[in-house]
Amino acid sequence: MTTSPPEPGLHEGEFHGGDLDAARRRFPNAPAPWIDLSTGINPHAYPVPDLDTSLWGRLPQASDERALAEAACKRYGAARPDMLVAAPGTQTLIQLLPRLLPQGDVAVLSPTYSEHARAWRREGHTVREVSDLDEIGTAKALVIVNPNNPTGRVLPVERLRALAADLEARDGVLVVDEAFIDAMEGSASLVPQLPPSAIVLRSFGKMYGLPGLRLGFAVARPEIAARLRDNLGPWAVPVPALQVGAAALNDDAWLQRTRVTLEESGDRLERLLKGCGCEIVGRTPLFCLIAHDDAGTLALALGEAGLYVRQFPEHPRWLRFGLPGEEAAWGRLEKVLRPQGQ
Amino acid sequence: MTTSPPEPGLHEGEFHGGDLDAARRRFPNAPAPWIDLSTGINPHAYPVPDLDTSLWGRLPQASDERALAEAACKRYGAARPDMLVAAPGTQTLIQLLPRLLPQGDVAVLSPTYSEHARAWRREGHTVREVSDLDEIGTAKALVIVNPNNPTGRVLPVERLRALAADLEARDGVLVVDEAFIDAMEGSASLVPQLPPSAIVLRSFGKMYGLPGLRLGFAVARPEIAARLRDNLGPWAVPVPALQVGAAALNDDAWLQRTRVTLEESGDRLERLLKGCGCEIVGRTPLFCLIAHDDAGTLALALGEAGLYVRQFPEHPRWLRFGLPGEEAAWGRLEKVLRPQGQ
Repeated sequence: MTTSPPEPGLHEGEFHGGDLDAARRRFPNAPAPWIDLSTGINPHAYPVPDLDTSLWGRLPQASDERALAEAACKRYGAARPDMLVAAPGTQTLIQLLPRLLPQGDVAVLSPTYSEHARAWRREGHTVREVSDLDEIGTAKALVIVNPNNPTGRVLPVERLRALAADLEARDGVLVVDEAFIDAMEGSASLVPQLPPSAIVLRSFGKMYGLPGLRLGFAVARPEIAARLRDNLGPWAVPVPALQVGAAALNDDAWLQRTRVTLEESGDRLERLLKGCGCEIVGRTPLFCLIAHDDAGTLALALGEAGLYVRQFPEHPRWLRFGLPGEEAAWGRLEKVLRPQGQ
Repeated sequence: MTTSPPEPGLHEGEFHGGDLDAARRRFPNAPAPWIDLSTGINPHAYPVPDLDTSLWGRLPQASDERALAEAACKRYGAARPDMLVAAPGTQTLIQLLPRLLPQGDVAVLSPTYSEHARAWRREGHTVREVSDLDEIGTAKALVIVNPNNPTGRVLPVERLRALAADLEARDGVLVVDEAFIDAMEGSASLVPQLPPSAIVLRSFGKMYGLPGLRLGFAVARPEIAARLRDNLGPWAVPVPALQVGAAALNDDAWLQRTRVTLEESGDRLERLLKGCGCEIVGRTPLFCLIAHDDAGTLALALGEAGLYVRQFPEHPRWLRFGLPGEEAAWGRLEKVLRPQGQ
């Protein structure tokens, strides 16, 4: 028993998590409020500081942009602030990256976040979705989501650096999307010792629980960063994102506390999912991917109970669970996954 | 006596108004607070409603995006909401428009906002900055800012429709940037009877006094709108802009009141500038462009008094004045323009 895909919105494109409107249409009788577990977004959001809305009355200032770049540089461990490119969401950068190279052969390590392949194809590149690094051949661009969404696979930095060296030798680029790396300790990131051919994407909204603010970064050598900035144009990041972003990225204490909270929550989620017969395919601190023979039925039961999880049309046995936040959300999830009497 | 151009920020590009940091560096001894008259932004900003920041914890929803498109459709008089494309600022759309056509001959009616020519050149088009519509020849794209920034020139809708018909006959596009049209009565806009070859840009931040929020629209026939949306990618507009934008665009009473206020302010500014020997080159309800033989000296006197106006390196006799807001700002401007004894 499977459910139908959601109706498209104004933006017709890939099937994504996070579309609660679609969940409401599919399960009109589900109890409110909906618990959205369909994305890998931290449910314990950074507390948004009081915003001086009078600042929205002027254009974003170069000094605000520099303050954000400096905070991101320190937080991500980059060598220089001019290697940071801030954008209204990493999605915007994903749209721009395929413009850095002439049309050619591109490999995307798959299965992964579908917008990468889509963006390179839109620009006329020949995209191969490869399941193994042995298949990349002489691709001029290689895209790796690390840790991977949805499988959680992590490639070690040494391996990424070797791949970057190969790509540099043929004037190519290595794109590493570290959207889900923030909750891990820093050693997994390619940013602190960035190879010249590498471009790393960092999402702000996922770890800081504020995807609606739209903020993300590319980290690349200064010449590539300048080209990306030129493609974005001036004033790309709104003042609210400049303000909240700089405050959050400078808050080390919040980050450390939140990493602990997320690890505990992730362990709790894994135990719960294993307890009802789910096989753990992979996890990051922000989501857990499971396989289950009755995944469609399970998603239906969750939907009818007002819990929205991510399904994968091409992998019908899979479900991806984000972390519940409040105890009430955990309770509603446990009620479906641990029926009475079990 | 002229002043030096501002130091570049992280984003090296054109010389623009709105860069108060640059003004502070040039005039370190100016009294605070700075009065920024260097942009054409309404100083009487729409009052930002209380924002539910908890909504920033999820991705922008298709229903929020539809609500904004419907508000903009009604406000601008478009035929259908799917003709509206919302972006984080019209600048983002200016960067994307040159991708709609194969590389070719493009005419920009000049002098005007410099980012148009810059964006088409970046995409490899051959750009001619023409001062007369007789010079457009067989250009495949024609860009007109209407009313024009900075000259205030207004082309009648009938003329624009005739140009659009010519361009349609050769598979071209007419881009009309109506960034400064909101304060005028609706009859000047091309949106209500949009020709199929036309793409109109509408800025939210200027009229609503909230450029830091980053919100702007393109209006085009649905097929073109869909292509622009595909280039922007999903979730392009942050939740704060979706919320504030829809509320403001639906507020007709505020718009009517504000148009009256702006007209009175514009008349007062024109009288003041004429009174000190400035020639009025052109005006819109949001700015006044003057010519003066000692424009450089005047800008210097204003800068030393903490008043920032827009200079034009290629037109040293010109200065553009935005509207002062509070009475204290008017007082400081009058003190420079009407020295004691006059």
